[in-house]
Amino acid sequence: MFSNTILIIDDDIKVIKSLLRIFHDYNYNILYTTDSKKAINIIDNTNIDVIITDQIMSPPTGIDILKYCNNINCKAIKILMTGYPDLSVAVTSINEGGIYHYFSKPWNDNEVRDVVRNAISLKMKIDKEDSILEDFYKIKKQYQGIVSDMAYKIETYRHSIIISMLKIIKSKDLGLYYHSTNVAKYSTNIAFLFDSCYKNFYSLINAALLHDIGKIAIRDKILYKPAKLNNNEFEQVKNHVIVGYEIVNDFDFLKTSASFIREHHERMDGSGYPKGLKFEDISFEGRLLGICDVFDALTSSRPYKEKYEIADSLDIILKGKGVLFDSTLVDILCENYNFIMGNENIFNLYFSEVTAT
Amino acid sequence: MFSNTILIIDDDIKVIKSLLRIFHDYNYNILYTTDSKKAINIIDNTNIDVIITDQIMSPPTGIDILKYCNNINCKAIKILMTGYPDLSVAVTSINEGGIYHYFSKPWNDNEVRDVVRNAISLKMKIDKEDSILEDFYKIKKQYQGIVSDMAYKIETYRHSIIISMLKIIKSKDLGLYYHSTNVAKYSTNIAFLFDSCYKNFYSLINAALLHDIGKIAIRDKILYKPAKLNNNEFEQVKNHVIVGYEIVNDFDFLKTSASFIREHHERMDGSGYPKGLKFEDISFEGRLLGICDVFDALTSSRPYKEKYEIADSLDIILKGKGVLFDSTLVDILCENYNFIMGNENIFNLYFSEVTAT
Repeated sequence: MFSNTILIIDDDIKVIKSLLRIFHDYNYNILYTTDSKKAINIIDNTNIDVIITDQIMSPPTGIDILKYCNNINCKAIKILMTGYPDLSVAVTSINEGGIYHYFSKPWNDNEVRDVVRNAISLKMKIDKEDSILEDFYKIKKQYQGIVSDMAYKIETYRHSIIISMLKIIKSKDLGLYYHSTNVAKYSTNIAFLFDSCYKNFYSLINAALLHDIGKIAIRDKILYKPAKLNNNEFEQVKNHVIVGYEIVNDFDFLKTSASFIREHHERMDGSGYPKGLKFEDISFEGRLLGICDVFDALTSSRPYKEKYEIADSLDIILKGKGVLFDSTLVDILCENYNFIMGNENIFNLYFSEVTAT
Repeated sequence: MFSNTILIIDDDIKVIKSLLRIFHDYNYNILYTTDSKKAINIIDNTNIDVIITDQIMSPPTGIDILKYCNNINCKAIKILMTGYPDLSVAVTSINEGGIYHYFSKPWNDNEVRDVVRNAISLKMKIDKEDSILEDFYKIKKQYQGIVSDMAYKIETYRHSIIISMLKIIKSKDLGLYYHSTNVAKYSTNIAFLFDSCYKNFYSLINAALLHDIGKIAIRDKILYKPAKLNNNEFEQVKNHVIVGYEIVNDFDFLKTSASFIREHHERMDGSGYPKGLKFEDISFEGRLLGICDVFDALTSSRPYKEKYEIADSLDIILKGKGVLFDSTLVDILCENYNFIMGNENIFNLYFSEVTAT
């Protein structure tokens, strides 16, 4: 076990020997010297817990040693012993020496033992507080590191979830992947045109990218049927918004996106699915994804149809203005379709952020 | 701003007034009393930074007040002022009063100002250290809370990733989902029989559950073809191990599982895919998933075939012993197929852990 270190300084070796006898039964590490100059050297080079020093010695005196300790910020507890009690020494030892105890010789052995034991307790308390303070900054830094690593891991998981879902869409159907990124591009552009301070870009782009992930549940013969679907087949297709919602809704950071996904086939007049919601009961993003989904479907070729011209596609959408589609969004699309189809900047910005690894 | 509080105790109001003048320009909150009994009351009820007390008063004396402060662990810095300097008072103020400074009257105004300023600095340093110590435990606890919340979030993401991937498999093809859970059940049972101290259950069960997720990339007409596949079609089927690997390998905690997934069609003689690995170059888990995959395929019905009897299935696998399949694993399967197909405990244990929310 670590033992405490006491330094005894007295020009009379007999005094030192008497003190050594007092501490004989204690597990102290005791250094001593009759030469107060050497004492300074020991103080400089050793971690001392308690200093017991005589006062009257050829310089440095006891008071000089106390002052020296104060000047170098030595944290040893200081005890002065003197055979010639003197008021001015006592006062100086208070005012300049930071003294802990003042003994007059001859001393009482038991008192010396008690005072030294208390001095050591005090020193250990001070040391412990110092070490807690040191630990504090170390542990705080460690925790900051752990928290920052974990935050990075959480962020990485979020990105990897989007990336792996996109891989699933891409490997299922490359055309569906491009449709998804087109809807993401168009919807972020329209959201920006609708409100340049729009706040929900992350949820919107994630919803747009994953809005059709539920289509993995549709059999190819229905999904790629080059003819009109019968009722039973259409019911299976309609289910993709529920499947998509359920796959995505497992993740806390995608819950808002999941609800947008579920709404992207709702229509203003209540003719949509799955809930037949009307007007403002459909979220802004649900309405926005709906119009972008249809617009990209019209302007892209599918297994069962050629693509429409842009003008014809806009005409079709205009016919649904206020009935199927949000009037404001139809107007924004019709007036800005060049920007909406061409501008990659907003999409690229958020896409790179939601998929960065 | 918080101002420091000084308590002045002297039975001579003129002394108090002189001291007040000294501190006139300082923003100290100064309390004073000529009644040392009242001083005790103030010390009990106020947070004092510095006490300046006269010595000779009707009891309690200055020394009594210092001792009292020490006894109640009052952390105020203590300064004694006396018109009658006395050695024994000085020594007692050291040994029992924890004194900071000893003044003889008359004092030097500048010296008093300096000593009080230093005393206040010291007290503020002590207070600051105390408050850091208090903060330490508070902040440590806060960080522990944050870390534990984040660890829970990370764990939840891991589970949600498995759950959402399983939802994708299940919504694509319910039969494929049951095949995946069967392979998970058989492979964890065989791993346990192979080595009751087997350590890799988490990576194994995740790999087993997701080993065929790459099949979402195969067109239905190939995946469900009720006849032999041509070369081109077979190449598309083979690709599912790569697609599966790539979807799963995005997640750090699934990287080991991803490599098992990539290996589940490798065969001992190098006739498997995608790499044509041989013998021990295929991981234990790759070999294990391979045999379980085939065994469940044989014992289950598929669109293009009826299911085989268990005995016939084992015969088919036995023919591949050491050639296609790991001999030890073939033996374990043949000797324990009842347990392997029937025991749900190991599967349930790990399945509930990897999907718990």
